[in-house]
Amino acid sequence: MSVVDVLSRKGKLVDDFLLRMLKVGASNELCEIAKHQVTSGGKRLRPVLTILSCEAVGGNAQMAIPAAAAIELVHNYTLIFDDIIDRSDLRRGLPTVRAKYGDVMAILAGMHYRETIFEATKRCSKSMEIEEILSMALRRIIEGERLDVLFEQAGRESEYIKKVMYKSVSENGYCRMIEAKTAVLFEAACRVGGLIGNGTPGEVKALSRFGWNCGVAFQIIDDLLDIVGEEGTLGKEVGKDIKEHKLGNLVILYSLEEISKSLKTKLLGVLNSHNASKSDIEETTKIILSTNAVKRAYKKSEDFIKEAKAEMNTLSPSEAKNTLLRLADFIIERKF
Amino acid sequence: MSVVDVLSRKGKLVDDFLLRMLKVGASNELCEIAKHQVTSGGKRLRPVLTILSCEAVGGNAQMAIPAAAAIELVHNYTLIFDDIIDRSDLRRGLPTVRAKYGDVMAILAGMHYRETIFEATKRCSKSMEIEEILSMALRRIIEGERLDVLFEQAGRESEYIKKVMYKSVSENGYCRMIEAKTAVLFEAACRVGGLIGNGTPGEVKALSRFGWNCGVAFQIIDDLLDIVGEEGTLGKEVGKDIKEHKLGNLVILYSLEEISKSLKTKLLGVLNSHNASKSDIEETTKIILSTNAVKRAYKKSEDFIKEAKAEMNTLSPSEAKNTLLRLADFIIERKF
Repeated sequence: MSVVDVLSRKGKLVDDFLLRMLKVGASNELCEIAKHQVTSGGKRLRPVLTILSCEAVGGNAQMAIPAAAAIELVHNYTLIFDDIIDRSDLRRGLPTVRAKYGDVMAILAGMHYRETIFEATKRCSKSMEIEEILSMALRRIIEGERLDVLFEQAGRESEYIKKVMYKSVSENGYCRMIEAKTAVLFEAACRVGGLIGNGTPGEVKALSRFGWNCGVAFQIIDDLLDIVGEEGTLGKEVGKDIKEHKLGNLVILYSLEEISKSLKTKLLGVLNSHNASKSDIEETTKIILSTNAVKRAYKKSEDFIKEAKAEMNTLSPSEAKNTLLRLADFIIERKF
Repeated sequence: MSVVDVLSRKGKLVDDFLLRMLKVGASNELCEIAKHQVTSGGKRLRPVLTILSCEAVGGNAQMAIPAAAAIELVHNYTLIFDDIIDRSDLRRGLPTVRAKYGDVMAILAGMHYRETIFEATKRCSKSMEIEEILSMALRRIIEGERLDVLFEQAGRESEYIKKVMYKSVSENGYCRMIEAKTAVLFEAACRVGGLIGNGTPGEVKALSRFGWNCGVAFQIIDDLLDIVGEEGTLGKEVGKDIKEHKLGNLVILYSLEEISKSLKTKLLGVLNSHNASKSDIEETTKIILSTNAVKRAYKKSEDFIKEAKAEMNTLSPSEAKNTLLRLADFIIERKF
């Protein structure tokens, strides 16, 4: 079975439960809005990591479902607000919640998601521990999102943001941001799976590190696909980060290190531009592709995947462990 | 000691704890933004209800503090998003979080508040039960907010809202909205106080009903003050509901029942107007004041306070009980 098939099959296990949770305490109207977010695609990568992590320490898929659903809910909770913050209209090839229902209903649906996370977590074994992990993860994700916004070079009207935004971003600063924004949830996904499967402390630690490394690699590839991906396959605009003035993209950061002063001025000019045209983005992409940035970023993501896989040596052989290793490879090989 | 003094003194007990909770897992920068919401005033009515409810069944103030803080955090969590939704720049005479830091940072601060609620709840005795009560309350508040928005007669750009908005609102519909938007949290405030004070099921039920009735009365008075309040005392614009096209105001609803067809057209015209002027609002207020609407709404709030106080017969005499009864009166006598 291909990794994409595994994701689809195990992901479906989570969907029924997740939709049931979204109904709790919601009017039909709000539920319809909330459902749009999860029924309009998504790879279900994070909940499948939870299920596989549970299985890899001797648990079964069934016992991991509430926690896996909670993880996917956390992800979608942050996506709803992320789309509001970035004024995004398209995700996974379909209109975002805010594009379809407006910002106000998206905010209310987002708030409802947070209560649904609680509803799912309540049904987990070790619910208090899992709640704590998810809440701490959320705090980190919020901080990651804050940094991501402050790494943007233009496009925000708020005087406060204009005052405190970063004028430049180091590789270290970038890493701090993506660790919080992305890696923390991958880490939590694997950790809660390991906990629910009653893994030993050593196993849970190894799974957490596996997840963390996969998360960092995942975000680097996300950055990379934003520059060199294919729109149809990706389900969202290519060059979105450039259009959204984001300096928090490793490929952009690496290329800035390599190019001449005049090209640097050009690239930063497009990042600063209030309405970068398609040809601006194409030209910028050409500049980026003339460097080793894509290659270096890919290499970096490979290093993280290697680290991730090395962590798995702690676990005994199993089908789930094998699938986790294949999933790790998929994270950097994927085209979407 | 006057009721305002009680609120201030007991409210202060909550503030220290609350600010400590806001720091957990937040960067200094985000914490500063989050703190602005709670340090810029507020009557602390809800947390004081929690403390007094705890004391009224034999508990002490100290044991109620985490729960009281959680209740105040829920309130402020919803206010941050409410101000974003209504694009409000002023609350309690000071700039709102969104006015001071922009919508994006307000959203992130709002999300952080939700995690802080969890942080406070964790520290309560009976934490699981309290978490459940607060999460259910939040779901109802979200629904109340949704209805409140859909009761507006204009001012929303979303095609979805334009399609599903209410063209008219009955008194029943209004009650459903304010029960969810306001009464539910007053009810929860008293219930968790009673639970933490180890009240009997009968006492907790009586306190819950007391809170619920107080909450309904509070919202009716809020509506009333929006029309006839004094700006300086109120800390916010008078006539804001009219400006924000809100049909979900009992005084407006009552006056519409009484006035001639032509005045009704006039009033609804101002509610529908995209930029109601100061003189529009003054004229509308005159129309409203020519009816019995204010008197009827006040009478209605008095009825709820009577109900609230009757519930308190279940409780043994105590100073806290007396203060709760005085607080109930304050709710309808207040000018802010």
